[in-house]
Amino acid sequence: MTKKYTDAEYAAMLPKKQVGTAVLFFNTKGELLIVKPNYKDGWLVPGGSADADESPLQCAARETQEEIGLDIPTLQLVGVCYGHKKGVFTDSLKFVFCGGILSDETSTKIRLQTEELEEYRFAPVEEAIPLLSSSLQKCVPQCVDAVKNNTVAYIEQ
Amino acid sequence: MTKKYTDAEYAAMLPKKQVGTAVLFFNTKGELLIVKPNYKDGWLVPGGSADADESPLQCAARETQEEIGLDIPTLQLVGVCYGHKKGVFTDSLKFVFCGGILSDETSTKIRLQTEELEEYRFAPVEEAIPLLSSSLQKCVPQCVDAVKNNTVAYIEQ
Repeated sequence: MTKKYTDAEYAAMLPKKQVGTAVLFFNTKGELLIVKPNYKDGWLVPGGSADADESPLQCAARETQEEIGLDIPTLQLVGVCYGHKKGVFTDSLKFVFCGGILSDETSTKIRLQTEELEEYRFAPVEEAIPLLSSSLQKCVPQCVDAVKNNTVAYIEQ
Repeated sequence: MTKKYTDAEYAAMLPKKQVGTAVLFFNTKGELLIVKPNYKDGWLVPGGSADADESPLQCAARETQEEIGLDIPTLQLVGVCYGHKKGVFTDSLKFVFCGGILSDETSTKIRLQTEELEEYRFAPVEEAIPLLSSSLQKCVPQCVDAVKNNTVAYIEQ
């Protein structure tokens, strides 16, 4: 049979989605690391948009390094959150990883990316969740449960 | 502070990735359902590209209905496979779901999408894997293990 399209035509036609990451870190008291961006209200966790040809795991490790100055070799996928198209933004996929428990010594090595972030702190999960952006509020609780249960959450917003 | 870009400018700049799905079905003997496309060599499992504003789960359910004529309400995420940019194709994410074990009665209700598929069969996993396309060969084995272990595989190709 003959192909209807060239590879280039077909590749250009395929719909594509924006991909981002979020990384959960805990301290030895089980509190969640949250960061305060200087460009919008609310708190976030480390993470950001994946670059072209960058995997979710690579993105999560890069954002962790850039935003809090830590090289964390082992990040574990704990959730995938799908978000529908919203205004000018295409639909999206957020990959949530867990960086585990930071020792007190490692926590002292956190260096904040001051261009975009103005503060960080560890807060009990139930206090941290209401401080987060609305999109993180919709997926972080299930991802925290996934960490506890050693599973991976699949969430549609 | 002032924003550097409008939302529309920022949305357009964000890199995006192609998203696809693959669905694993087993028969009561534990054999894997594979389908033979008429447009290329090798065998596949049901699945395909996600439409714009279609979630991975919605895509997997739609492709299952279109390709083999079954409405399977419960699909479980068992793997995420990242593939780097390849020629004209952007990097991609394949979401692998498990549709569970099809009863002998349900298996008789399979109706193949004859526009794109010419044959289906159940084959023991170790026989099925070598028949699959190279990209599926790289992720299906770990996803079959994830089904057995009730986990979710994260794979980078």
